[in-house]
Formats: sequence, C-alpha cells, structure tokens
Amino acid sequence: MVWLEAAYTYTSAPMALVVHKYGGTSVADAERIRRVAHRIVGAYAEGNGVVAVVSAMGKQTDDLLALARDVSRHSHPRELDMLLTAGERVTMALVAMAIEDLGVPATSFTGSQAGIITTGKHGQAEIIEIRADRVREGLDQGKVVIVAGFQGVDPDSRDVTTLGRGGSDATAVALAAALEADRCEIFTDVDGVFTADPRVVPNAVKLDEVTFEEMLELASAGAGVLMPRSVEFGRRFKIPIHVRSSFHDGVGTWVKEDTMEQPVVRGVTYTDDEAKVTVYDVPDTPGVAAALFELLAAASVNVDMIVQNVSHEGITDISFTVPTVSIAVAREQAEIVAGKVDAGGVSIDDGIAKVSVVGIGMKTESGIAARMFRLLSEEGINIQMISTSPIRISCVIRGDRVLEAVRALHVGLGLEDEGS
Amino acid sequence: MVWLEAAYTYTSAPMALVVHKYGGTSVADAERIRRVAHRIVGAYAEGNGVVAVVSAMGKQTDDLLALARDVSRHSHPRELDMLLTAGERVTMALVAMAIEDLGVPATSFTGSQAGIITTGKHGQAEIIEIRADRVREGLDQGKVVIVAGFQGVDPDSRDVTTLGRGGSDATAVALAAALEADRCEIFTDVDGVFTADPRVVPNAVKLDEVTFEEMLELASAGAGVLMPRSVEFGRRFKIPIHVRSSFHDGVGTWVKEDTMEQPVVRGVTYTDDEAKVTVYDVPDTPGVAAALFELLAAASVNVDMIVQNVSHEGITDISFTVPTVSIAVAREQAEIVAGKVDAGGVSIDDGIAKVSVVGIGMKTESGIAARMFRLLSEEGINIQMISTSPIRISCVIRGDRVLEAVRALHVGLGLEDEGS
Repeated sequence: MVWLEAAYTYTSAPMALVVHKYGGTSVADAERIRRVAHRIVGAYAEGNGVVAVVSAMGKQTDDLLALARDVSRHSHPRELDMLLTAGERVTMALVAMAIEDLGVPATSFTGSQAGIITTGKHGQAEIIEIRADRVREGLDQGKVVIVAGFQGVDPDSRDVTTLGRGGSDATAVALAAALEADRCEIFTDVDGVFTADPRVVPNAVKLDEVTFEEMLELASAGAGVLMPRSVEFGRRFKIPIHVRSSFHDGVGTWVKEDTMEQPVVRGVTYTDDEAKVTVYDVPDTPGVAAALFELLAAASVNVDMIVQNVSHEGITDISFTVPTVSIAVAREQAEIVAGKVDAGGVSIDDGIAKVSVVGIGMKTESGIAARMFRLLSEEGINIQMISTSPIRISCVIRGDRVLEAVRALHVGLGLEDEGS
Repeated sequence: MVWLEAAYTYTSAPMALVVHKYGGTSVADAERIRRVAHRIVGAYAEGNGVVAVVSAMGKQTDDLLALARDVSRHSHPRELDMLLTAGERVTMALVAMAIEDLGVPATSFTGSQAGIITTGKHGQAEIIEIRADRVREGLDQGKVVIVAGFQGVDPDSRDVTTLGRGGSDATAVALAAALEADRCEIFTDVDGVFTADPRVVPNAVKLDEVTFEEMLELASAGAGVLMPRSVEFGRRFKIPIHVRSSFHDGVGTWVKEDTMEQPVVRGVTYTDDEAKVTVYDVPDTPGVAAALFELLAAASVNVDMIVQNVSHEGITDISFTVPTVSIAVAREQAEIVAGKVDAGGVSIDDGIAKVSVVGIGMKTESGIAARMFRLLSEEGINIQMISTSPIRISCVIRGDRVLEAVRALHVGLGLEDEGS
C-alpha cells in the first residue's frame, strides 16, 4: 500500500472528481471501515476530489427496524425515517474519523446537510434536487466529503426522509450528477454485473461494460446489483457508473452510454417475487382495462406485464403481474372492477416467475425472441405471458422451472463465451 | 391505568405546559419506552401541553464511543458529535411511535430541528439560545413533542454539537425556559435528591424541596442527580424542576426558588475525583498566583479550591484542587510557573476527597462551620483545605476517610430527622 507512505498533498485543481458509494457489507465493522478509508484515501492521493456515500453498517438498518417493531406494531412513516437515518449517520462519522487518521481532512454530512432535497413520501422519497453547496465547499477546502446515503429532506415539512431500497446508490449517482463528477464508483459485495446470477449459473461471465439502457432493463428484470433509478440518473446526466467489489482492486463493470461491443444478448435475469392476477370472463367493452389499471395505479400497485386475450364471443381475460407484496391490494381492486363490469371473477397465481433476456443488439437484430421461445420449449417450459421492449424479452413461466430456464438460455444464447 | 381508556381530547388551551426529561435508564428497552409513552400520555390526558426530552437508550452512547475507539484512537470532535447524536435520534423516534400507538399525535425533533443553538465547542457545547418555533408549532397542533437531549447545532458552522455530561437535563430546563413552561420534570433512576448519597448513608432522607441555590451547591459538591448548569437555567428563568423516579408515580424532589422550610443544613455531599496540586516554597511576590491560574485557565483546567498558606520569611505554598482527569495538564502548567518563579517544586496528592455541607439557612445562622470541624475532629479526620460559600462549607480530607466523614456529619447535623 504505497500511498500510505505518500504525502497527501491536495492540488487545488483535482485530476477528477469521483463519487464512491459503499454499501452496508463494505462498512460492516471497524476493520472494514478502515479498509474503506484506505480505498478513499487512495483515490484522493491520486489527486482526485472524492465524495463517498455510505450506507448503514451491515445489518444496522434491520436492527433498527426490529427495534421499531418491538416498540410498535403500527406504521409511523415520519418517525421510522427519523429512526433509520441514525444508521448512515453512525457510518459516515466513523468513516470520516478513519480517513482523518490517515492524514487526510474529511467531513461528513447527513442527507439533509448535503442538500439532498426529496419528495415527502416517507420510506419511498424521490430525489428532486441536490443543493450541494456544503459538499462543494468541503471539496474546495481539500476535504474528502462523506455523505449519508439513502436519506434526504422534504423542504416543505423540513422532515427527514428515506429513499427506499437501493437508496444509497441513487444518492451517489444523483450527487455525481449534481457535482458534474467524472464517474461514480459503486463498491459492493459482488465483482460486477454478470451475464446471469452466478449463484444460478456458475459459468456466468462478468461483463466489462453495459449500456445504461441495458442496465436499466437488467435491473428492472431482476439484476439486484443496481436499482433502476440510480441507473436512470446515470443515463440522464451521463455519469459513467463503475460497479465493483469493495474487497479487492479488480475492475468491475462499467455502466455507460456507449460500449465498445454491442452484443445481441448481454445477459439473462429472472424475478420470482411477482404474482399473476387474472380477471376472467370480462365483457369485451371499452374502458374496462382503463378502469382496472386506474384503480391499481391509485392504490400504488406497480403493474408489470399486462396481457389481454383475444376476445371470444365478446368475452375476454385480462392478466397482469404485480409484486407479491401487492397481491392483497391488487385482488381487492380487481374484484371491485370485476363486480362492476359483471366479469366472471378474479384468480391469483403466485407460483410464477419471469425470465428475461436483455441486449442492446436486439434493436437491430431480430430473431432473438424466436430463439428464446425455442430454447424454453426444448426444455418443456410453457410460456404464460410475454412482454418486450426494444432491448428486452421477458417470459412469465412456472416458478419451479425458472432456474432451469435461466441456465438453458445462458447456454443456448452463447453467453458463456462473452466477456474476458 | 385509567387514562388508557380515556379519550385523549386535546383542549386548545392546555392546563399547563410541562417539559419531561427521560434519561438513558428510563428508555433502555422497548418495554421501558412504552412505559415512558404511557407516562407522557398521562400528562397529556390531564390537559397539559407536553414536551419530552430524551437521552440515548441505556448504554447506547457508551457503545457508540466504543465503536469510535475501535475505528480510531485519535480525537475527532466534530465527527464524534455526529456519531453520538445518532443515539438520541433513535430514542426520540421510538418514543414518538409508542405515543402515537396510544392514540396521541406526536412528533420528534433533533436538537437542531428543535432550535437548540449552541457554541461550537464539540463535546462540551453550551446552549446560547433556543429557537423553538417548530416545537411551538407542534404543541399548537395538539401534538406531544419529543426532543433529542444532549445535542444542538452551531449556527456558524451549521455542525451538530453535543453538550457534554448531563446535557439532556440542560436541554430540558433550557427548553422549559424558552417555552415559558410551568415546570420541568426530570425522570431518573433515583427517587429524588437526598440528604446524602443513600448508598453511603442508608438513613439518608429524600428531600421534598430544595432551593435552586442549594441544588447548585449540592450539584457542584458531588450530588450527581442534576448537573449544575441545568439548575442554573432553572434558577435564572424560574422554572421549577421536579426530580423524580421514572419507575413509580411517587413525588420526588422539587427544586425551586423558595421552599417552605429553610433548614440550616439541607444535605451532605462528597466528591473523590479531585486531586490536590501544591506548588511549594514559592517566593511570596505579587503575580505568582495570577500567572499560575491564568495558565491553568488557558489550558481549560477547572480549578476548584485554592489555598495559599501564610507566608513564612517570604516563602509560601499554593495548593489547589483539580479534577483527576486534569492532573497531567495541571502538573505541566504548575511546573512551568514553578520554574519561572524559582519555587521549590510541584507535588500532587490524588488521595484526597472533599466533603461538603449545604443549606440555605447558613446565610443567617452561623456556627455550622464550627460544628462541622468539631464533628470531623471527633472522628480523628484531619482537614487539609477549607472553602466556603454563603450556603456551603467544604473540607478537603484524606480520601480513605470520606465515607466516615459523610456519615458522621449526616448524624451529627441531625439530617436523619429531616424530610417526611
């Protein structure tokens, strides 16, 4: 670790401005926090301006949630956000201390202090704007700036908010955008983005590059490594994102606007936390689908695929998928509509899964859908629903066949030959 | 618990405005937090406006300090304050949740949100001003307001600060003053203020009332139940303080401006965390003492008693007491002065203790000092130093005799007959 002996002289014109993000596993204990500090100081010693966004330590957020459950079985969104934001506060202070111990000035800011302005929706707030004056000030003073991820402030109520799942990634990429950073490095407990989940497909290959569009589709289709909204920030503000391991120095996966290669298929992903809702024997009259999906939207149910069968003698079925957590609400709303339009009824199937194939090359090369359907049929896997985007094809299949489907597609589409 | 079944109707003109304060032991776990919520709601149900100041749960602050030590052996005052303030943040959110579960609206504020404006001295900040707009707003909306104790914000740096030991009491009394509250109730793990430490004197009697002046002297002389500066706030702004147990409903001790009775001696206290520093064989020339105590003040050493012996042939000794934590600094500074003025040297005695007798009636009744010295001499206890205030007499004695001294004075001054 040669930079440990180097003198950390801050140059007033840094080589680059980089935003790092360290997740809970990377800062789970004192030893790991010191390791993170070394990595940050390494980037600083190379002459970069560094902002580091940190999550709560290890299972801290879960511990705080458990404490809240011990105290109350009810929902207290404002107070829960107040509680949970203590987690990142602890990490950011400790990381700043560890950096200062290496002889580099550091200062930590909460989401509110860093100017992360959000909507007021507690637990699921969205970043509206970043007023990064204090962060810029810190950088101008030659300091490493540590920012609490996952949290912000609603300017109307002046209450603290949290961003929901993957919120720290969103903080990091949004901050990088606001600061016009050169890149955003997401340090995590995996080596990068793979052609498939390596736990399912041992031959899965780490990708050197993916485009924002692809990453957005991969993330939406189940690749857990980055949440869609942080990718969307990166795409919108053209901030290259480097997803890499916090445990070694190896290069991970760059998520960027254009990639050297544009393979037809970049990866295979799956989700198994959705359920299929069917409203059956629906009179095929205009406005039924509109009524149904308006109600679901009003109830904040996140509908993914929608399929309406061809009408037979004026009667049709409408099927759609929703996250399993929304089954109860979706059933309730669907039954309201079914009652109003005199449909046959509502059925729920929570034994489904969705397998997706994503690749930027699909835009120009056709035939992937056909190959995907063929590969699944050769495995004897029945396709229940299909949806497509210009760079993705997803099929809903039986949940107990999904791992076989992922493996068959990974081999059949030649993904093992990808990457380095 | 009859109020649990009552309907909590908020009257727009509350009977009174009360500030509660709950220490770490009172909120150490989920069960105790619910109990605290019940107590707060009880006061609210009686028609009072209630602001509750809370400390970090149990040993939380110690745990965070341990974590900081695991990460870094160095001093990081700003970041340490950032870290420690996570503790009260957790408590305040949980207490607010528990109150809402009882059907009463509640909202929690950090020190910064509650407008606790302090100096910038991290770890030992002092409250300068309270801008309690948000607290008042919450009360006007019929809510119970929970405020994080021990913390504030320095308006210049906009950094979070902590108030140091006993800081939550200071927050509570200062808030009560700013809000012109009718009273401040300090809920703690003891039943009130006693004529002596009940662990030392089993016959010690709980006092129903003490004056602010007495409490200030008692607190400064070792009674740990309230810190001097919170008493000083109460005195200055005439806020009656009720020190009482959080574990039962019994009346504790009222600290107020005037008390019904004005006994000559209210209580006996002691400290054993001071050391005596002596600069010996000092040429008795003007300016030596000034030089010494200027240096000590500049080094933030808190000097308590000072005694200068009668000069013999132009040579004298100067002795003073300092907290044991300051011994090293005090020795250093004293040796500098000793060297400059050509004194004999510096000696330290950390085997001392201070026993004090406090009572408002001493203002008018003389002879207590003589009785105190007589009682100590009857025990064969030698007095090394003496200091007095209008309502207090303190004697420095050998540390290994201090418990005997406390017991002898408690009996000899008739304190067992005090109280109810």
